[in-house]
Amino acid sequence: MAEIKITFPDGAIKSFEAGITTEEIAKSISVSLAKKAVAGKLNGELVDYKAPLMTDGKLEIVTKDAPEALVVLRHTASQILANALHQLYPDMHFGVGEANEDGFFFDTDNPAQQVSSDDLATVEAKMRELVKANLPIKREVLSKADALALVEGDPYQTQLVEAAAAKNENQVVVYHQGDFVDLSDGVQMSATGAVKIFKLLSVAGAYWEGKSSNPMLQRVYGTAFFDQASLDADDVRRQEAHDRDHRVIGNDLDLFFVDPKVGAGLPYWMPNGATIRRTIERYIIDKELEHGYEHVYTPVLMNLDAYKTSGHWDHYREDMFPPMDMGDGELLELRPMNCPSHIQVYKHHIRSYRELPLRIAELGMMHRYEKSGALSGLQRVREMTLNDGHTFVAPDQIQDEFKKILNLMVEVYADFDIKDYSFRLSYRDPENTEKYYADDQMWEKAQTMLKGAMDDLGLDYVEAEGEAAFYGPKLDVQTKTALGNEETLSTIQLDFMLPERFDLHYVGADGEEHRPVMIHRGLVSTMERFTAYLTEIYKGAFPTWLAPHQVSIIPVSDDHQGDYAQSLRKQFAAAGIRATVDDRNEKMNFKIRDAQTHKIPYTLVVGEKEKADESVSVRRYGQDNSVSQSRQDFLSTILDDLASYSRE
Amino acid sequence: MAEIKITFPDGAIKSFEAGITTEEIAKSISVSLAKKAVAGKLNGELVDYKAPLMTDGKLEIVTKDAPEALVVLRHTASQILANALHQLYPDMHFGVGEANEDGFFFDTDNPAQQVSSDDLATVEAKMRELVKANLPIKREVLSKADALALVEGDPYQTQLVEAAAAKNENQVVVYHQGDFVDLSDGVQMSATGAVKIFKLLSVAGAYWEGKSSNPMLQRVYGTAFFDQASLDADDVRRQEAHDRDHRVIGNDLDLFFVDPKVGAGLPYWMPNGATIRRTIERYIIDKELEHGYEHVYTPVLMNLDAYKTSGHWDHYREDMFPPMDMGDGELLELRPMNCPSHIQVYKHHIRSYRELPLRIAELGMMHRYEKSGALSGLQRVREMTLNDGHTFVAPDQIQDEFKKILNLMVEVYADFDIKDYSFRLSYRDPENTEKYYADDQMWEKAQTMLKGAMDDLGLDYVEAEGEAAFYGPKLDVQTKTALGNEETLSTIQLDFMLPERFDLHYVGADGEEHRPVMIHRGLVSTMERFTAYLTEIYKGAFPTWLAPHQVSIIPVSDDHQGDYAQSLRKQFAAAGIRATVDDRNEKMNFKIRDAQTHKIPYTLVVGEKEKADESVSVRRYGQDNSVSQSRQDFLSTILDDLASYSRE
Repeated sequence: MAEIKITFPDGAIKSFEAGITTEEIAKSISVSLAKKAVAGKLNGELVDYKAPLMTDGKLEIVTKDAPEALVVLRHTASQILANALHQLYPDMHFGVGEANEDGFFFDTDNPAQQVSSDDLATVEAKMRELVKANLPIKREVLSKADALALVEGDPYQTQLVEAAAAKNENQVVVYHQGDFVDLSDGVQMSATGAVKIFKLLSVAGAYWEGKSSNPMLQRVYGTAFFDQASLDADDVRRQEAHDRDHRVIGNDLDLFFVDPKVGAGLPYWMPNGATIRRTIERYIIDKELEHGYEHVYTPVLMNLDAYKTSGHWDHYREDMFPPMDMGDGELLELRPMNCPSHIQVYKHHIRSYRELPLRIAELGMMHRYEKSGALSGLQRVREMTLNDGHTFVAPDQIQDEFKKILNLMVEVYADFDIKDYSFRLSYRDPENTEKYYADDQMWEKAQTMLKGAMDDLGLDYVEAEGEAAFYGPKLDVQTKTALGNEETLSTIQLDFMLPERFDLHYVGADGEEHRPVMIHRGLVSTMERFTAYLTEIYKGAFPTWLAPHQVSIIPVSDDHQGDYAQSLRKQFAAAGIRATVDDRNEKMNFKIRDAQTHKIPYTLVVGEKEKADESVSVRRYGQDNSVSQSRQDFLSTILDDLASYSRE
Repeated sequence: MAEIKITFPDGAIKSFEAGITTEEIAKSISVSLAKKAVAGKLNGELVDYKAPLMTDGKLEIVTKDAPEALVVLRHTASQILANALHQLYPDMHFGVGEANEDGFFFDTDNPAQQVSSDDLATVEAKMRELVKANLPIKREVLSKADALALVEGDPYQTQLVEAAAAKNENQVVVYHQGDFVDLSDGVQMSATGAVKIFKLLSVAGAYWEGKSSNPMLQRVYGTAFFDQASLDADDVRRQEAHDRDHRVIGNDLDLFFVDPKVGAGLPYWMPNGATIRRTIERYIIDKELEHGYEHVYTPVLMNLDAYKTSGHWDHYREDMFPPMDMGDGELLELRPMNCPSHIQVYKHHIRSYRELPLRIAELGMMHRYEKSGALSGLQRVREMTLNDGHTFVAPDQIQDEFKKILNLMVEVYADFDIKDYSFRLSYRDPENTEKYYADDQMWEKAQTMLKGAMDDLGLDYVEAEGEAAFYGPKLDVQTKTALGNEETLSTIQLDFMLPERFDLHYVGADGEEHRPVMIHRGLVSTMERFTAYLTEIYKGAFPTWLAPHQVSIIPVSDDHQGDYAQSLRKQFAAAGIRATVDDRNEKMNFKIRDAQTHKIPYTLVVGEKEKADESVSVRRYGQDNSVSQSRQDFLSTILDDLASYSRE
């Protein structure tokens, strides 16, 4: 038989008989290695542990502690899931299955009775049977015709076979698991017995091929690990992410909803969410006015020509909505950015150096076309309202204005009790300068200025080459969502380009025309993303000033203290406090629990004693005990709380 | 010669020789009639006073006091204008001329030197010469070829001849005025001497054919009357309309602008206008929250299917923007109304009778396609934000809720000092019921309920048949713009149809599903229209609470009282007052005048005396004298002013 030459990571080269498996090679090195190994990686491609190796190449032995190992394990887990489902529901059709760093899933369609979360225990038990049976797993390559015969009657699998065959010269890879056969080209463990530590997590709807016009399948999620400690840690992490997930909290507290049937990525803010958003909006506008910004309202639509001038149409078109033909040659575009709008405001007057820095701000609604698969709650949407501002400065004012914006930003963060963030200075990619606005001197100057300002202020930051906008360098403030995705919370971007493209001027002290510099900045990103972010960091327990309902007043008996409760509500309302009387026909303890569930900052219980001496029994959210206060003292307490943006 | 039979308004029939003129007939009746007459009206069509009458018909003699007489006079005035311009500027080209109830105009293009308002006196003098010469005026019908020869070299007139000939079997009507010949088919006076009382008013740009892609012509405006008293009264009215016109004030006070090049009908709110709008928005939201409304934010885009369900796509399509194809079969539409959005909010939960009336409100941005010719400042726009609300009620709650809305409306009007309005109840057209939602019983019931409520409240109203929306009857509050157009300020509309189309329910006390009724209501219409309206009724002198700049602080010498002025500004700002220090390098009297020109409610002058005793010298807008107040007293004064929404 022929020989093959295997190169190991340390550079050593050894010859083996062709057809040898990674398992055999691992055993030849050491028994302990063979025990830890789960697959091979030949020339950078994963191969099954027991697959015969037929060519020369570099081989790595993938052990359980390698990141790829978990995916291999979960591939097998997902096939065990499919096998178990198939045995429990013989008529079930299957969509795609997937294994990844987060776990695994399989899409299912069982029209007679869709699988639900109630069925997970049964399915998991069946999976444990299959694990116990330790069924051997084997890869096989079928012809398209054989593969089609195998999946006959399953419309999704038939489409998957067609697609796989088209990609791979009419060959289709399947894996056998005992008698069960399943389409798959992901490398797997050698037998089902390897998947000892696993768990099914949930069932959720998922459109076939991710398109809302297609049927909705049931996606069964699970995860698997090599050891129990990792599964336990993942459980904790998953629970924490779930507890923080703004979509979960948004639903529990009735903050917002999105319905793809009336518009994907277009959120509806329910009264509770709208209250939070309105409070943020008023706060940010008042704060900006105080800091010398001038707030405007500009249209969400603009002649497409403006975005051709700005360069957005050339560089950003795939994120823009389709233009609307209004007749008379007018093409209107839903704006993807507010900059050209604020430039119109600047250009409306001849500007003097005395007016600079001119700070134009707006809660500007914009539209961006995100792919439907990328949409997520309030975090990734297609319609958004940006806390936007554009400062027009003379070149010698750049650094000073940049510092002013940073200081304002830090002040705002403190009011929202935001602590977990990092600064990132984004430069152009020095290897691909042709992707960016062409002015080397501008780039060097601007990048140096931002870096200098950060150093002056003594702030820590990372530098990221290739992350700049096409029109200039920027400072981003980065944070993480509950799901672990990095998000930009704030941004300050220098721009020497738009002032040139739109031919902006100011009259200098010398009476001559000069070119201003633009600074794009967002303090708290969009109302959508910021509300999602706050929901996650607060876990829904909004500080009093932001809470949709600030005070729940519970009369012990509505017949006896109802009037007193209403008089408190009126007094609080007159002071701008959002208070409600819970006069539902429910037990007092139910109402107290309900106020805690809804994370209402203050619950006031009023009985005969409180009515008699004009007091309230106050329970702060998250605390177990109540304290008695006079109504006036309580009013002072909550007004202090509101004025200080406190989270205590 | 042949005879014709003329029937007079009193029914008398008389025979005349064919070819007799209206003038000769008038003289045959009485000399005094002939003196007052300016034209005839044969079978309803105006004819020149000296035109031969060749057919039988009903004849009215049009005298100077008839409404048509002014248009006849102004037709001649416009031709005198053209004649004068032609003599002064022989190379001038002419667009259209027009005479109407408001005056007359002629469009001109004199590339070498466009006519401007500086030239009006010269043009008017030349017109007086032509009037004095009393040139005879005569109608003539030319062949197309002859007419084209007449206007050769004038591109606009050539187009007008082509258009006139195409409409009128290749015949073109012209009027001679002495040697001058002009295209026109409007009936005229018999000689230029008739136009004794006239005046040129202004020059303004106007696009050829009203299209912004065409060249801009200079439109010369004038007016003419039969007597000086009417011209004088018109002067006063015109000045008043100009002083009130929100477009004029909007420009003077830098409130907003519209630029058709970046988007026709899409206003940009400058900082001053934005401050007014923001103040209105916060006022109205807080007022509505106080009255039990729940405010939401819903997307401006929606799947087109929703507007098919609602009926807007069938009944309202020509006012809607073109749908956007998002791929995957999704067609998104910029909403022309907010109702379907609020219906989504309603439908998001199962609703109980305990929740009704459920009042959903929003400052909802909408887009409506208005023809470019109809657009006007903030009054007629394509993007607008409506103070919208939809109340979902049980049928037996209709009348009570209707009254609640009316009371809220009246409360809001009082705060804005709105007095000049009238109520109009709009019913369906009983002759054309097929134009409306088909449910006779619903219409009768709803119309009766609205009328009953108005009567109960003792409010005056008019009833307008055929003015209802297609889905139900409504109450409108009507007012007039500076230009005399009637506008709807507020509206309350019943709707039994949408709840059915969207299959809305609530669970009644009986545990069964019931159909709610919707009430659409807007208290102050759109932010755009309402701001335009307030600008007009206040003539730009906004009450303190709405004024963009509330206090102008003028130090007598910036070197000596500058710090004191700044300390006042800070104190006021902390109290939420919009105060600025006018530290420009200008004379004090200039600054005081400037504050009055900008209609700033309070001007504070601070000199050494004021600085020494911590006082201010206060001048209220529109008053000639100042009063001295301590800074604390002034603060109390203005805070009272703000709290009371005062206009004093």
